[in-house]
Amino acid sequence: MAKSELYGKDLICTQDWSLEELEQVLKLARQMKASRFSDQYTSLLRHRTFLMFFYNPSVRTRQSFEAAATELGGHAQFLEPGGMRLRTKSSAGETIEDAARVMSRYACGMGIRILEGKIEAYGDGDELIRQYAEQASIPVINMADDKFHPCQGLADVMGMREAFDTDSLKGKKLLQIWGHGALARAWCSVQESLLINSRLGMDITVAYPRGYDLDPQVMDQVRANCTAAGSTFEILNDSRAGYEGADVVYSRNWMSPVAYQGGLNRQEEIEKAMQYRDWICDESRMDLTNDALFIHPMPVDRGHEVSDGVASGPRSIIYDVAENRLHVQKAVMAQTMGE
Amino acid sequence: MAKSELYGKDLICTQDWSLEELEQVLKLARQMKASRFSDQYTSLLRHRTFLMFFYNPSVRTRQSFEAAATELGGHAQFLEPGGMRLRTKSSAGETIEDAARVMSRYACGMGIRILEGKIEAYGDGDELIRQYAEQASIPVINMADDKFHPCQGLADVMGMREAFDTDSLKGKKLLQIWGHGALARAWCSVQESLLINSRLGMDITVAYPRGYDLDPQVMDQVRANCTAAGSTFEILNDSRAGYEGADVVYSRNWMSPVAYQGGLNRQEEIEKAMQYRDWICDESRMDLTNDALFIHPMPVDRGHEVSDGVASGPRSIIYDVAENRLHVQKAVMAQTMGE
Amino acid sequence: MAKSELYGKDLICTQDWSLEELEQVLKLARQMKASRFSDQYTSLLRHRTFLMFFYNPSVRTRQSFEAAATELGGHAQFLEPGGMRLRTKSSAGETIEDAARVMSRYACGMGIRILEGKIEAYGDGDELIRQYAEQASIPVINMADDKFHPCQGLADVMGMREAFDTDSLKGKKLLQIWGHGALARAWCSVQESLLINSRLGMDITVAYPRGYDLDPQVMDQVRANCTAAGSTFEILNDSRAGYEGADVVYSRNWMSPVAYQGGLNRQEEIEKAMQYRDWICDESRMDLTNDALFIHPMPVDRGHEVSDGVASGPRSIIYDVAENRLHVQKAVMAQTMGE
Repeated sequence: MAKSELYGKDLICTQDWSLEELEQVLKLARQMKASRFSDQYTSLLRHRTFLMFFYNPSVRTRQSFEAAATELGGHAQFLEPGGMRLRTKSSAGETIEDAARVMSRYACGMGIRILEGKIEAYGDGDELIRQYAEQASIPVINMADDKFHPCQGLADVMGMREAFDTDSLKGKKLLQIWGHGALARAWCSVQESLLINSRLGMDITVAYPRGYDLDPQVMDQVRANCTAAGSTFEILNDSRAGYEGADVVYSRNWMSPVAYQGGLNRQEEIEKAMQYRDWICDESRMDLTNDALFIHPMPVDRGHEVSDGVASGPRSIIYDVAENRLHVQKAVMAQTMGE
Repeated sequence: MAKSELYGKDLICTQDWSLEELEQVLKLARQMKASRFSDQYTSLLRHRTFLMFFYNPSVRTRQSFEAAATELGGHAQFLEPGGMRLRTKSSAGETIEDAARVMSRYACGMGIRILEGKIEAYGDGDELIRQYAEQASIPVINMADDKFHPCQGLADVMGMREAFDTDSLKGKKLLQIWGHGALARAWCSVQESLLINSRLGMDITVAYPRGYDLDPQVMDQVRANCTAAGSTFEILNDSRAGYEGADVVYSRNWMSPVAYQGGLNRQEEIEKAMQYRDWICDESRMDLTNDALFIHPMPVDRGHEVSDGVASGPRSIIYDVAENRLHVQKAVMAQTMGE
Repeated sequence: MAKSELYGKDLICTQDWSLEELEQVLKLARQMKASRFSDQYTSLLRHRTFLMFFYNPSVRTRQSFEAAATELGGHAQFLEPGGMRLRTKSSAGETIEDAARVMSRYACGMGIRILEGKIEAYGDGDELIRQYAEQASIPVINMADDKFHPCQGLADVMGMREAFDTDSLKGKKLLQIWGHGALARAWCSVQESLLINSRLGMDITVAYPRGYDLDPQVMDQVRANCTAAGSTFEILNDSRAGYEGADVVYSRNWMSPVAYQGGLNRQEEIEKAMQYRDWICDESRMDLTNDALFIHPMPVDRGHEVSDGVASGPRSIIYDVAENRLHVQKAVMAQTMGE
């Protein structure tokens, strides 16, 4: 494989890439899934190091990125920046410039995961990743931050296309709906889904209880994407109405904006969310849809976000989407880092 | 190497496998030891991922499993499930079904280690591993649980066969004896040794102070194994008598059953054990044996479980057995996971 | 590559090796830098395991050693000995003999990092590493201890030679100067620099405030090295005088000897150090030099140890030296561990 046009590119949000660039990655991901251990792929990162910085822990993201590096012939280092003293406003330490420049000498790329709990205000995590990307001469991949989760968004698209057996999602209705739950989720997966799927021409319905608005800037972008793609966009505050005619239902808990103001009180968020027991994706609601797919970035909070019957039902593509994380990440790494 | 008949099989306890299956692994382990880095073995797990879940920490088990994956051309991910929210009776989280099914998409196999301290009652650890095995479509290897430690058992057998220079352990006397000590050990290595060696026809003597009974169900199985193999089985509560005529002495501390009831008080267990100062494998006792081998799963608590002279003496095979962990694990992984 | 004469050798301090041996490693490091992923190097540790014991955390050392193993075709295991019960004077546990002998069966080499905070008295860390080296049959590499940091010293030399475009550092003046700072650094990098550069014939000036003496035994060795090499050695207690005519300035904070006596109080050390605001390597001081290089083992405490202008200036070689860590470590591992 010759060096890709995407070589050297960061991936922080799918919105930063052109549709052509995203399609290039999705195409390679599909090929890689079909021929997973083919020789043409297993030495693309031969003997190269990918650095993974997990400010926040993760199971699936860590497993899939580390496996991606292994399958490309490279090695992913699992790093928890606890022992790393970065300079902050109030304490001495290393600058991001110094850290990023040295890592650029050791590695072919780096991934960073930083979410609520490790940041002071909403946006700080995304900002930190962008600072790393600014200073590093190697590609920086967002492995989930407080705003975006590009590899999840790509895996979602790949999963829907497989299930519909068509690359065109145009005109299909996506219901992106809040679910109650006991795990107080970040906004990144949901916002990334809205951003990428609105660009691909899906009709977008977002539904959540009053008080659970997402990032207004992101929502403006989603609305603009829909306008550009000639598709529809609506926000509902109803736990049932949005299901009508949906082709895909993405039910997922997320925190209220209050959680991002002045320190996250996770317990309070959970108690608040658990009051909305009507907000669950169950069989009776799915019956209103156009035989919709069920999609979710996992881990699934069964019995809260979604019923067992739907999550394990024939239209659920949650395991396929989770598997696709591996393939899209391999494709992103191959194209941005492969020599 | 063609795909083995063992392909896809879990290994949770050696008792779950037929003797023919165990011999198949032991034969390959011996070959792998003789030609450790031979090309015929170094790509059996080429670019494959083995997931290691360490609920409890470990030095030797981690090193040997991770090295095993490396030597087979694959990569073992070291995972500590601290950041993983599994659903429990009392808290929300991911189901084992969801976790295991996704991991089956990323990896060629997984290993789990879970012992006292991370479980509520004796048997919970083994049960968790069996639930993973039930849900996963990839092989699950027990890397030590509260009941069993199959790879240790296999390494023990391999070590004794090497030292005796014969594959037949039939009719040799194994003294499995409790030692005092300050480390409050689990039952898994000792129970696995009794299970596998009784099936191989060794005459079994178990010796421990009153109050240190092992799992009665396991002991019934050991007794049944001896009957089936036509060998002898006895339990003694004497620190010396069992040495008479022994061909192998396996001296090792283990906790009393009380430790598994209602929360482990490690300090209390240690204080209780340290009173039995007579229970040590030393030169005077070894003189009563049939020039017995000394065997131990390590780490050795020298001066308590065994004297320095015996542990470092000419009949001690502790380092060889520890090395064999690597080879049997490579053989198990190659046969259950190698394409 | 045939097995090197260095095969099997430990590297605990550069002073333990002959100059010829050090030059052999430096020569290979330069070749490896020039042809980083050449086939002649990428299978030197093929499928081999290198064990890294981090008693103390580290970013650069971990990244560079793990990448080094990957680039040589092997794998480095990242181990934090928290879960490892080594025997101490006051508690039961495994002996170093037992631990080291088993590891020698699994791995081709091991690295150990142990500094203040994990030791009781100055010298204990270096002593522990030497005990491991004594018992292990595989090479033991010091990844920084309380006294020495050999790979940093080698990387420093490589960086200066590159910048001066000559292998001969003889007669060049090295100013090794204390800087104030908020990070309370260990002595190892500074002492290693003094030891290796004095042997290579550099004229040595050490400068620090009264009360910041380094290890007197090491200083005696440095003085002896200078005598043997026919170069000069002086100690100054002035923050400015030493810059006069310097060819290389190495400004770095280090703790006072008090910190090593009776338990480290890091906060107290920092407060004491922060009073010496004159002790900073800045442009006005660098103007006094012979257009000196600026060198530092990183992480840099900018604004304290050195001004931004110097650290990011045209004569700063900090990133090159950091990169060289990778190359010298690859060369050391290849020559001491490569079959």
